[in-house]
Amino acid sequence: MSQFWNKKVHDLQPYVPGEQPRMATLIKLNTNESPYGPSPRALEAIKASADDRLRLYPDPAALALCTAIAEQEQVPVECVFAGNGSDEVLAHAFQALFRNDAPVLFSDVTYGFYPIYCQMFGLEYRTIPLRDDFTIAVEDYEGPAGGIIIANPNANTGIGLPVSAIESLLKRFTTQTVIIDEAYVDFGGESVVPLTQRYPNLLVTRTFSKSSGLAGLRVGYAIGSPELIEGLIRVKDSFNSYPLSRPAQAGAEASVRDKAWLEQTVGRIIATRDRTVTALRERGLKVLPSVGNFILVHHPDCSADTLFNALRERAIIVRHQGSSPRISDWLRITIGSDEEMDALLKALDEILSL
Amino acid sequence: MSQFWNKKVHDLQPYVPGEQPRMATLIKLNTNESPYGPSPRALEAIKASADDRLRLYPDPAALALCTAIAEQEQVPVECVFAGNGSDEVLAHAFQALFRNDAPVLFSDVTYGFYPIYCQMFGLEYRTIPLRDDFTIAVEDYEGPAGGIIIANPNANTGIGLPVSAIESLLKRFTTQTVIIDEAYVDFGGESVVPLTQRYPNLLVTRTFSKSSGLAGLRVGYAIGSPELIEGLIRVKDSFNSYPLSRPAQAGAEASVRDKAWLEQTVGRIIATRDRTVTALRERGLKVLPSVGNFILVHHPDCSADTLFNALRERAIIVRHQGSSPRISDWLRITIGSDEEMDALLKALDEILSL
Repeated sequence: MSQFWNKKVHDLQPYVPGEQPRMATLIKLNTNESPYGPSPRALEAIKASADDRLRLYPDPAALALCTAIAEQEQVPVECVFAGNGSDEVLAHAFQALFRNDAPVLFSDVTYGFYPIYCQMFGLEYRTIPLRDDFTIAVEDYEGPAGGIIIANPNANTGIGLPVSAIESLLKRFTTQTVIIDEAYVDFGGESVVPLTQRYPNLLVTRTFSKSSGLAGLRVGYAIGSPELIEGLIRVKDSFNSYPLSRPAQAGAEASVRDKAWLEQTVGRIIATRDRTVTALRERGLKVLPSVGNFILVHHPDCSADTLFNALRERAIIVRHQGSSPRISDWLRITIGSDEEMDALLKALDEILSL
Repeated sequence: MSQFWNKKVHDLQPYVPGEQPRMATLIKLNTNESPYGPSPRALEAIKASADDRLRLYPDPAALALCTAIAEQEQVPVECVFAGNGSDEVLAHAFQALFRNDAPVLFSDVTYGFYPIYCQMFGLEYRTIPLRDDFTIAVEDYEGPAGGIIIANPNANTGIGLPVSAIESLLKRFTTQTVIIDEAYVDFGGESVVPLTQRYPNLLVTRTFSKSSGLAGLRVGYAIGSPELIEGLIRVKDSFNSYPLSRPAQAGAEASVRDKAWLEQTVGRIIATRDRTVTALRERGLKVLPSVGNFILVHHPDCSADTLFNALRERAIIVRHQGSSPRISDWLRITIGSDEEMDALLKALDEILSL
């Protein structure tokens, strides 16, 4: 605490990201990165951007990247906004598109940044409990709302919602922004991007950090009606006119245009996930049905804390979600390569036989 | 305007950055970029970063980069904070380190983003007029202040303040943050970085966009006491945990470590500036004494508007600062290469002889 800080800063409880260990030999299954890395075309584009043009500011609107996204998603380019990771896009969206006249609604178990953004931007919020099976029931969202955000598939649980459920929510909440955070949608979820063309209050956010294997490049985007996008642009241009570097714009654009790489790597991750879930259940662990590139697991007789530490001793890092009490005895495990998941299973066999 | 926007967004008047034309043949003297581009070592480091490691999140604290900056500036690494351009660093600083109990003070002619940040973060402000000769007189800063920010050299004017003047300000304002924005200090200004080790309320911000020729990479930083840096980190971690991509961290670090490139390119820009100022004064233009990589110029008989348009017709883009009425008849011109400034002088000769 400091006399020089703004009062609000004293009360902030910042997000604690998953550890980024500097030891390269660790098996890192804690922050949902792709084991397969980015498209080779993205790497080429980043290298090609590293020339004398770096002396010039980048395009503040990232038009070439937004155009590539618009073509891919079959929406007008006016419906696309790009930013410095989907965290920045979400932060701008909370500030620009959620109102103060009623609480923002989101699940009690979801991405830990949502309540922090509310705190940052002075928004009240109300959490809606997941059902006992950890699913979201959209009918539980009711009453006044300054906005709604749902991660689909949900962060931490990996459980997905069908388009029809989200559409039913949109039919009931028409006067406030509804954000669907599709960070993990490529691993088997159903996207609501097409609905953005019919519901002017729907914003969908996406990231290049997961399925595109570009967590190190920091690019995310949003798709929504031009009036929502304009709100984001107003906040962006009051904060940082040029959020995306030239290498980031070039790399992300090339990544979008290499759909074959995405499909191939995502297909491998899905296959590994399904195999891993089966193997874990055979070992007596409870695994929620995930359509993300991670799984939430629980052992009936061995605490998450014990498992976490025993895995760490074996150089395997997973994420122990302490943030919500409902999942304090669960571990979130990223789907890595087949070799990494084999190492995980082997380590678990060792730990559980002790 | 939209019913879905937060009320505050309706009132925002976003910053309008200088045009980034897509025509490569233009002579671009409007956004104070370096004509010489980045260190070749920075380009190599960016290329080397474009590999499979991009699948992993970057270091959220940018420790290697902050260490390089700390060594260069001879301060402890705990005194360094890096962000996505100095605009982001400034935005975080306004939010974290300026208080609401009194207005923030800054010049009436300075970087146009300052009042916008105040608006974004609900801070009152009071502008202190420059003297008639466009200099800042620190004794004019008085009364209650929630914080003070001074660009040194000042944006738009290019006029510098000596360290002694800033230290006298710091001796009077001890209970609130004083930010010195040194975006342009490398072109002949006096840095107050050493004072950060004696004044815990002093924050100095810097950018790689100007003297380091890396506007396209988006990296800026701040130097101040650990308690100020902690305030910035709290806001950063409540907004975007990983603001700097791997290519940005690698490129900026290599840039810091190539001091020879910086000194050589900055030396050339200073020589070109001084020659250009002399040539412009010989042609009857008024030029403020700049220690930046830009000059503010005025012609007694030819309006800034006329000059701006006539230069644009000749494919030369300069910046017409409409934001402050006091400089509405002045043009801000970036110091480009010798060839570019020769083209500018030739164009002016044509325009003024018509």
